[in-house]
Amino acid sequence: MPRFIQKVSKKTGLPPGTIVSVGTRPVGKTKITVFDFDQNNYQEKEISTIEECFPFKDTPTITWINIDDLQVDIIEKIDTHFGIHPLVLEDIVNTAQRPKMEDFEDYIFIVLKMLYKDQDKDEIIAEQVSFILGPNYVISFQEKPGGDVFDPIRDRIRNYKGRVRKMGADYLAYVLIDCVVDHYFIILENLDEKIEQLEEILLKDIKPEFSQRIHQLKRDIIFLLKQVWPLREVVSGLQRTESKLIKKTTVIYLRDLYDHSIRVIENIETFRDLLAGLHDIYLSSLSNKMNEIMKVLTIISTIFIPIMFIASVYGMNFKHMPELEWPMGYFVVLVFMGIIGLSMVIYFKKRKWI
Amino acid sequence: MPRFIQKVSKKTGLPPGTIVSVGTRPVGKTKITVFDFDQNNYQEKEISTIEECFPFKDTPTITWINIDDLQVDIIEKIDTHFGIHPLVLEDIVNTAQRPKMEDFEDYIFIVLKMLYKDQDKDEIIAEQVSFILGPNYVISFQEKPGGDVFDPIRDRIRNYKGRVRKMGADYLAYVLIDCVVDHYFIILENLDEKIEQLEEILLKDIKPEFSQRIHQLKRDIIFLLKQVWPLREVVSGLQRTESKLIKKTTVIYLRDLYDHSIRVIENIETFRDLLAGLHDIYLSSLSNKMNEIMKVLTIISTIFIPIMFIASVYGMNFKHMPELEWPMGYFVVLVFMGIIGLSMVIYFKKRKWI
Amino acid sequence: MPRFIQKVSKKTGLPPGTIVSVGTRPVGKTKITVFDFDQNNYQEKEISTIEECFPFKDTPTITWINIDDLQVDIIEKIDTHFGIHPLVLEDIVNTAQRPKMEDFEDYIFIVLKMLYKDQDKDEIIAEQVSFILGPNYVISFQEKPGGDVFDPIRDRIRNYKGRVRKMGADYLAYVLIDCVVDHYFIILENLDEKIEQLEEILLKDIKPEFSQRIHQLKRDIIFLLKQVWPLREVVSGLQRTESKLIKKTTVIYLRDLYDHSIRVIENIETFRDLLAGLHDIYLSSLSNKMNEIMKVLTIISTIFIPIMFIASVYGMNFKHMPELEWPMGYFVVLVFMGIIGLSMVIYFKKRKWI
Amino acid sequence: MPRFIQKVSKKTGLPPGTIVSVGTRPVGKTKITVFDFDQNNYQEKEISTIEECFPFKDTPTITWINIDDLQVDIIEKIDTHFGIHPLVLEDIVNTAQRPKMEDFEDYIFIVLKMLYKDQDKDEIIAEQVSFILGPNYVISFQEKPGGDVFDPIRDRIRNYKGRVRKMGADYLAYVLIDCVVDHYFIILENLDEKIEQLEEILLKDIKPEFSQRIHQLKRDIIFLLKQVWPLREVVSGLQRTESKLIKKTTVIYLRDLYDHSIRVIENIETFRDLLAGLHDIYLSSLSNKMNEIMKVLTIISTIFIPIMFIASVYGMNFKHMPELEWPMGYFVVLVFMGIIGLSMVIYFKKRKWI
Amino acid sequence: MPRFIQKVSKKTGLPPGTIVSVGTRPVGKTKITVFDFDQNNYQEKEISTIEECFPFKDTPTITWINIDDLQVDIIEKIDTHFGIHPLVLEDIVNTAQRPKMEDFEDYIFIVLKMLYKDQDKDEIIAEQVSFILGPNYVISFQEKPGGDVFDPIRDRIRNYKGRVRKMGADYLAYVLIDCVVDHYFIILENLDEKIEQLEEILLKDIKPEFSQRIHQLKRDIIFLLKQVWPLREVVSGLQRTESKLIKKTTVIYLRDLYDHSIRVIENIETFRDLLAGLHDIYLSSLSNKMNEIMKVLTIISTIFIPIMFIASVYGMNFKHMPELEWPMGYFVVLVFMGIIGLSMVIYFKKRKWI
Repeated sequence: MPRFIQKVSKKTGLPPGTIVSVGTRPVGKTKITVFDFDQNNYQEKEISTIEECFPFKDTPTITWINIDDLQVDIIEKIDTHFGIHPLVLEDIVNTAQRPKMEDFEDYIFIVLKMLYKDQDKDEIIAEQVSFILGPNYVISFQEKPGGDVFDPIRDRIRNYKGRVRKMGADYLAYVLIDCVVDHYFIILENLDEKIEQLEEILLKDIKPEFSQRIHQLKRDIIFLLKQVWPLREVVSGLQRTESKLIKKTTVIYLRDLYDHSIRVIENIETFRDLLAGLHDIYLSSLSNKMNEIMKVLTIISTIFIPIMFIASVYGMNFKHMPELEWPMGYFVVLVFMGIIGLSMVIYFKKRKWI
Repeated sequence: MPRFIQKVSKKTGLPPGTIVSVGTRPVGKTKITVFDFDQNNYQEKEISTIEECFPFKDTPTITWINIDDLQVDIIEKIDTHFGIHPLVLEDIVNTAQRPKMEDFEDYIFIVLKMLYKDQDKDEIIAEQVSFILGPNYVISFQEKPGGDVFDPIRDRIRNYKGRVRKMGADYLAYVLIDCVVDHYFIILENLDEKIEQLEEILLKDIKPEFSQRIHQLKRDIIFLLKQVWPLREVVSGLQRTESKLIKKTTVIYLRDLYDHSIRVIENIETFRDLLAGLHDIYLSSLSNKMNEIMKVLTIISTIFIPIMFIASVYGMNFKHMPELEWPMGYFVVLVFMGIIGLSMVIYFKKRKWI
Repeated sequence: MPRFIQKVSKKTGLPPGTIVSVGTRPVGKTKITVFDFDQNNYQEKEISTIEECFPFKDTPTITWINIDDLQVDIIEKIDTHFGIHPLVLEDIVNTAQRPKMEDFEDYIFIVLKMLYKDQDKDEIIAEQVSFILGPNYVISFQEKPGGDVFDPIRDRIRNYKGRVRKMGADYLAYVLIDCVVDHYFIILENLDEKIEQLEEILLKDIKPEFSQRIHQLKRDIIFLLKQVWPLREVVSGLQRTESKLIKKTTVIYLRDLYDHSIRVIENIETFRDLLAGLHDIYLSSLSNKMNEIMKVLTIISTIFIPIMFIASVYGMNFKHMPELEWPMGYFVVLVFMGIIGLSMVIYFKKRKWI
Repeated sequence: MPRFIQKVSKKTGLPPGTIVSVGTRPVGKTKITVFDFDQNNYQEKEISTIEECFPFKDTPTITWINIDDLQVDIIEKIDTHFGIHPLVLEDIVNTAQRPKMEDFEDYIFIVLKMLYKDQDKDEIIAEQVSFILGPNYVISFQEKPGGDVFDPIRDRIRNYKGRVRKMGADYLAYVLIDCVVDHYFIILENLDEKIEQLEEILLKDIKPEFSQRIHQLKRDIIFLLKQVWPLREVVSGLQRTESKLIKKTTVIYLRDLYDHSIRVIENIETFRDLLAGLHDIYLSSLSNKMNEIMKVLTIISTIFIPIMFIASVYGMNFKHMPELEWPMGYFVVLVFMGIIGLSMVIYFKKRKWI
Repeated sequence: MPRFIQKVSKKTGLPPGTIVSVGTRPVGKTKITVFDFDQNNYQEKEISTIEECFPFKDTPTITWINIDDLQVDIIEKIDTHFGIHPLVLEDIVNTAQRPKMEDFEDYIFIVLKMLYKDQDKDEIIAEQVSFILGPNYVISFQEKPGGDVFDPIRDRIRNYKGRVRKMGADYLAYVLIDCVVDHYFIILENLDEKIEQLEEILLKDIKPEFSQRIHQLKRDIIFLLKQVWPLREVVSGLQRTESKLIKKTTVIYLRDLYDHSIRVIENIETFRDLLAGLHDIYLSSLSNKMNEIMKVLTIISTIFIPIMFIASVYGMNFKHMPELEWPMGYFVVLVFMGIIGLSMVIYFKKRKWI
């Protein structure tokens, strides 16, 4: 199960701005890719040392630097060269952030959560993705390697599809954020299917493990809401910021993105309401089943206990029991038992128990 | 059951503004009808190619273009001619939108949900209806063919009923939206009846399937609220917009519409509260029934088990059991059993169990 | 039971401003009474045609026209003469409105709900009362005849009691609204008594019908809140309006009225919380009773089943059962049974079940 | 139990501003005490007619008039002399007010609820205390005689303790309100103890009356919140008012008072959450107890019913039952019964039922 | 268990600003440590009388005075020398404050709660920490001795680590508050572990004491939220204050702190939702277990009661019972019993009860 809280206590007492990696990150080789383009040209390269991308900072072209694995020394070099505030770099490396958007005049810092499904464990994974949007560059930081998420955007840049080559760095940042948000819908559809399955099963039968499946889905939804809830604020912050980094033409796209964010949040809240409803039917189904079980027990007991009593009366060994001597005694008693049993059955029919 | 989330994941990674149809739409023949009118004249025609309606754009008369089925190529042509932003056209075709109102200076874009009852499946269907309100034209887009919803308005235009011929394009847009909102009340009345039925049944008897009927209604209400909740924002947006497209005389009508929206939302919320109340009585009725069942079982067991014990005692085969030899032993025991049984009955009467 | 939603669907598709009566109103004879007064004089008459009251409009005196039954043709005549917007007249006749206050420069339109108890059916009835406040006139519209509600105000005008003769039309409107709101407290007191009764019964005994009584009260409260909740908005709207129709000296009275509205709403919310609490004790009382029933069953079964088993052992017909031959066998077994029974009783005492 | 709503219906229809006493007040002798002081002198007297305090109005010294019992004629005289609005005087006498603060330029009117514990009935009593703060006077109205609540403040004035003699009428009003709010903490501590007791009992045992005790506490909390909730508004109103009656130096004290109000409200809300939690454990304890009872019944039944069946088989009177003839038949059956009983016990051990 | 409310009632009636210690504080020896530093030098001393730290007030260097135990006479001396408002000093000593931030032009007063775990009793302890931030000094007050919490900051000052030596008193205050907030995460991680444990246990088995453990955690969370909730307000107040005491460069750090506060609150709320979910599975597990128990009882009873009845019939002692004479009667009956028993088993299999 995904934990809701990452261990950050080892940071307690350190000076603010200390860059300490907090997430559980495999220390692999950092992969840095650079895209540099304008309307006419584009250039793409994978670099091995962070210094190679520094020259791009001052060219008039749009530069997108994607850093796949977060290593403290690389981050520190970016600090020095791009003039980023140490608190920002601390937040990039400490992947326990909540999504946020901070405006530092020269650049805008954005933290988001990329959500995907771990296929093996059927778990939702949240990976931190941070963006630094400068005047003509975007730097994106991914918590884990495997940056194929942004491949469609790479293709668009290469093939001059869409508007991304024509517009500025702010539009590039929008496209990257949009790509992250689009992935949320895949998670939502998966959840939707699971809830539908649960609903269908529940209409047929109830099982004890059902309760745990509902709980698991509830946890997923709490987890998702926690990651996605601040998104609204982030996007509306971008929309309303007075920073000169966001051009007017891009704001219209951000409005669309804001709409998507609200749809994501509303869908999750709808799921939460549905689950609450499912839990309610589950509980009343349990009560119903209990009633049904008790009815069977009560019917059997109520029919047989009185006639067993009669049988046990005539099983007594008293010397003087006149009925025992009657030639038809046995049959009379059998018939009497039958009448009692039948009248019980009729009583239950009347009460609609059978 | 209506799904709460439409598949949009196939759009993931595409450039924003890509017009991809997302809803499940039968690809039929698009039906385009044009109404062009002023106070004195009116003209009505059904056209087969979208180009035929372009000339109306620049006439001083009010033009209403209704497009019944959403085909990507037609939408794209409207894009070029009316100068609509690609994001708008994307939203028209992607019918998973939430209701919204967006002001693009030259035109206002409105998305609503038309709600109706699928008679066969007893399901509530939400169909997306979009409007583009320009200076002297309204374009309406319906997700599915069958635009008889707007027939009363067509009649009014034809027969010069109401104010629609006298006033501008903004009033026409108001009339169309009002027509959509009026249909919500039909859904509400249907829900109201169902809840009333459930209430009446529940006062007589409880049945296990009751729980599922409540759940079904809850789902309907969650579904409705999701479609209707943003309506308030849409209408109040229209009311407060500073766009010169909405005239002062129309604002008073929008205020009335706003009132209707709030009544719709309040009614749905009332239904939600009523259903929650019904679920509560349902649960306590289940408990009550259980109590009743258990009482029957307990009464029968508690009366017969002690006297059966006595019978079984005198059924033992000990050689020396003096009572067995008594001439009146049998009758004494029968009377004794009767006393025990009766005193149990009295005990239960006292406890008000019988 | 009062329905929460009135049939308005027959209006679907009609042009806005169409005056169609929607409520279920007995078509009786409309009763129109006119009061015309200033500090020195007053005049009171019951008129039979609406035209008779038109001259009062232009006199400097304060005029109060009360219309008791809503007939479409009368309403339309008022429209023409007083220059009221058709939407207002539509809202007066369509009694499914929610309380609201709308400022149309020349006049203010107010819709309220008069609440009273139907003595026969023990139901709360909501009747729509509308007011049009003009510069020197107030027109009040009551849904149903029987306008004895405003009798105390009539007396005050006649007898020069209170300030109503000294102040303007706005004060008259305030007095009328205050009168409507004062009647809410009668409903609240009635509810309060019912809840108290329920509370007292519940402390003594629980009965299955209890659940329905709680539900009935919950419905009443949902119904009341729906009618009363918008009242706050209405009164605060009147208070804060910049309309010249409301004089400064009246605002202080409106503040008092606002206070009353909040007290009404707070009281209803308190009732809701109390009822939720009652439902909780009801449910736990049901569980308690179940526990008690089960305890009786368990105690009886657990005492008698083991000793019945012993009896049935010695009821077996084996040839060789040495105990049966013992002279004291029967008595030994009886004592043994007694010991088992007693030790069970002691066990239950220890567990505090008895 | 304290009623949540006071009978005000007898006021229905009376003109606004009519001074009618609504609470249930013993009509005793009104006690009026006057304190008149400045930094250098102070004067204290108990007066018998309200007219005696009128001269103080115009002296430059600070005057505090405390009126202990509310008699309509006295209140009316104050009206005339101090120029108080009739609505204010109506609110003072009608003790069903909610706490509020109203600014009438010349004076500020404040209504609060004094809360104390009725020792005999273990009930919380809310008594209305009203203040009129004028330029150099404070008039306080207490619903019931017994004004020892303000004794510490009287002492401070007499003995020149604290700042009360040095500062103005607004500070005096603050000190009086602070005194009322300080008394709330006594009620809170009492509630805290009761909840703690309940918690401790619940950890040991559950009893049916527990449910009623929780309900009683819930009622108390609903009652308290109703009285205390508007306090925040009252104090923040005083803090933010632009009235010249409140001096800047006093605002800092009002900020402190605001803090206290929030602490009172937060504590009550904490209690509500705690009680909700207690109710939850109570319910699950009931379920647990039921499970335990059912387990005992099931274990006993499941062990003995099968072996009783065997015994009853060999109690049948068939002529040809070979086992009955076996010399060791009886013992074999006994051993067999033992095996069945034991294996049942083992089965229950495995399921952890024993 | 930590109490939610501290006894403050003994203060009732005292003049505001009276410095009375309210918490339960061991009266030990007050420990006062002073740090005085600028970029180049630093000085550290432990002083025994408060007067020794007064000279530092007027030096241009940054001074941090930490007071470990709150003694009324020491606090009063600070009052006189530093010109602090008596209400502030009252709040420092009365440790029942809620976290708050108050701006008194010359200095800012901040109250926080330091949270830590009492290792012995497994309880969360909240200790009040107050700060007075002046132009070039910070005074911190800790409720209890044992100020090792701030040791890392002392080290940073000594060793010139971080920015604390370079920046002003406002940054020092930030660093101290940050240190307090960082400690919250330790509490959160501890809670997270406990909830995870509970979750894992619950998936395996349910036990009655589970209910109390959930309740204990709920209490902890209510307690935490009460302490932490106002933190957001405090930090955002610091961020937005227009006081000249907070420099622009520090605001960026406060924004980071604000972020941390929100993360703390969000995490606690997530825990609350998780616990509510756990309580739900707990309740449904109880119901499930009850169903399972009842099933066993019902199955055993329903199989054996009917066949016992047959046995008891043939245990009757009637003279004329033809079956008893049949040579194969016994075996026929045994087979018949077997058939009945088997068909019951099949019936239960069908219903999926076995």
